[in-house]
Amino acid sequence: MFSLRRYCLAMLNLLNTVVCKKPDNEHVAAEVDGKSIANDIKATLATEVCNMKSSIGKVPGLGVILVGKRKDSLSFVRIKKKACEEVGIASVVLELPQDSTEDEVLGIVSVLNHKESVHGILVQLPLPDHLSEEKIINAVNVEKDVDGFHPVNMGNLAMTKREPLFIPCASRGCIEVLHRCNVEIVGKKAVVIGRSKIGGLPTSLLLQRHHAMVTTVHAFTKNPEQRAREADILVSDVGVPNLVRGHWLKPGAVVIDMGSTLVKDSNSSHGSHVTGDVCYEEAIHKASTITPVPGGVGPVTISMLLSNTVEAAKRAYQWTEQS
Amino acid sequence: MFSLRRYCLAMLNLLNTVVCKKPDNEHVAAEVDGKSIANDIKATLATEVCNMKSSIGKVPGLGVILVGKRKDSLSFVRIKKKACEEVGIASVVLELPQDSTEDEVLGIVSVLNHKESVHGILVQLPLPDHLSEEKIINAVNVEKDVDGFHPVNMGNLAMTKREPLFIPCASRGCIEVLHRCNVEIVGKKAVVIGRSKIGGLPTSLLLQRHHAMVTTVHAFTKNPEQRAREADILVSDVGVPNLVRGHWLKPGAVVIDMGSTLVKDSNSSHGSHVTGDVCYEEAIHKASTITPVPGGVGPVTISMLLSNTVEAAKRAYQWTEQS
Repeated sequence: MFSLRRYCLAMLNLLNTVVCKKPDNEHVAAEVDGKSIANDIKATLATEVCNMKSSIGKVPGLGVILVGKRKDSLSFVRIKKKACEEVGIASVVLELPQDSTEDEVLGIVSVLNHKESVHGILVQLPLPDHLSEEKIINAVNVEKDVDGFHPVNMGNLAMTKREPLFIPCASRGCIEVLHRCNVEIVGKKAVVIGRSKIGGLPTSLLLQRHHAMVTTVHAFTKNPEQRAREADILVSDVGVPNLVRGHWLKPGAVVIDMGSTLVKDSNSSHGSHVTGDVCYEEAIHKASTITPVPGGVGPVTISMLLSNTVEAAKRAYQWTEQS
Repeated sequence: MFSLRRYCLAMLNLLNTVVCKKPDNEHVAAEVDGKSIANDIKATLATEVCNMKSSIGKVPGLGVILVGKRKDSLSFVRIKKKACEEVGIASVVLELPQDSTEDEVLGIVSVLNHKESVHGILVQLPLPDHLSEEKIINAVNVEKDVDGFHPVNMGNLAMTKREPLFIPCASRGCIEVLHRCNVEIVGKKAVVIGRSKIGGLPTSLLLQRHHAMVTTVHAFTKNPEQRAREADILVSDVGVPNLVRGHWLKPGAVVIDMGSTLVKDSNSSHGSHVTGDVCYEEAIHKASTITPVPGGVGPVTISMLLSNTVEAAKRAYQWTEQS
């Protein structure tokens, strides 16, 4: 399928590297401190986990399935595991070889589905090409689908008057940021660039649940910059560095950058650094509020995974803070 | 919840009855003949059902559950039953009393789920208030969910690279009309007014699957008429007569009217007539193509229900025209 990411990358290659310009005006947007928001959420969750433990002698459990040894996946899984430890969630990472068969992976999913101490199951994506992501995700017990990618949860997210058990973490993270920054969503024009099922799509659905008027921009959209300029709230989840330039923004727009791309960087000790979709140096002079990359939506997304896992455990044990 | 329909009705009541104006210009849009499209589809389906019968001695079966005796529901069920007969689908209507319990309705769903000769199950909506629509719809076997309202089918409709087993009939009808009228969808700006889970929402999702850039307008949208005026393809599914006026349309827009409201009419022998959301007399002078009400999307929707039922039977018997 024609992908917006691939299309944009090709266009940017034609233009060589985009160099963001520093505009003349001196307005500077409020920068969202995602780490601080995440720390706040983690502190609350840690207390809750602690109370659960003293009250019923149980802690929430997360089972992570990792197939293969993709560098980025290994790093994401490490971050998630560490975050679990911080709040007292028991996590187990099941590392399967790259050439695992579908039946082997489904077998592991089934074991975790039946394990009482595991309340959330996360299949680290992407899976190797020979495995059906759909079959494997659909096999996860809906009540343990802390990533919110199961079609039942996605369908219930789409439909008004239905309640998904879990909402995808990045999308929840996006709304959490808007709430914490006191951004009014109801009636606002939101434009979401990208429609991936783990990012753009559920974010569009969730913003609509919060009564924004949502337009989704994708590979086939004509004049995406013009569409973006109409947004009170602009969300980008494409994975193309510097796609969203300063002139794509309405003055005063709230900008949520969900993009995350590893780019080579000879100045960095790792030889690379993570960058978002938004040309930050330009956008900061047009937006009212902006999430940086790294340190914006990313950390909040991780804390939402922890929150989903704690919710799952509370439901499984029918436990609440008051009980 | 705040509903666009109720809001608009209140506004229109304030303004008394809207009288559509006949504009001066003489341009007249092409009127979609929904009955003729439906007849075409039914003729193809009838041949297919006939071939299935000669080939394997089976015909598709539709089970309809009707709780109570709402006049509009009785009429819809009668229309669906008649349409089934026209193409050779065996239909059975299970009429349950208004005060049926949830367990009784779930029991009937379960019987139909297990009945080999029933390939499609339709629960006529709305259900009486004391029944959980969610519980009952979710109990329908996903493989027999010919209305496409099960969250698994809705979730798979929302997600790119996933295939729902069934797409809601009115939404399929809308796309069918666009295809038959040779309306290009890819890259076009579509505005869908309304986000009900049986109409507006799945239509937004389906238009997006066809690569339109979709904006959904709802009760909290500011300046809905301005949003509507941006649409190359305008779909309205609110249930408010004459909501969409001529000045809401971009000249040359394609207008799909999914609204259907019974209004009092002393000139009609029934004492009422059905009307859509669009002020037809005004819109016809601005649109390039328009669906009337009645006789537009309605009949095509019914033929899509038949098509979904035939598909369900073909899947169940693993039968194709070639086999």
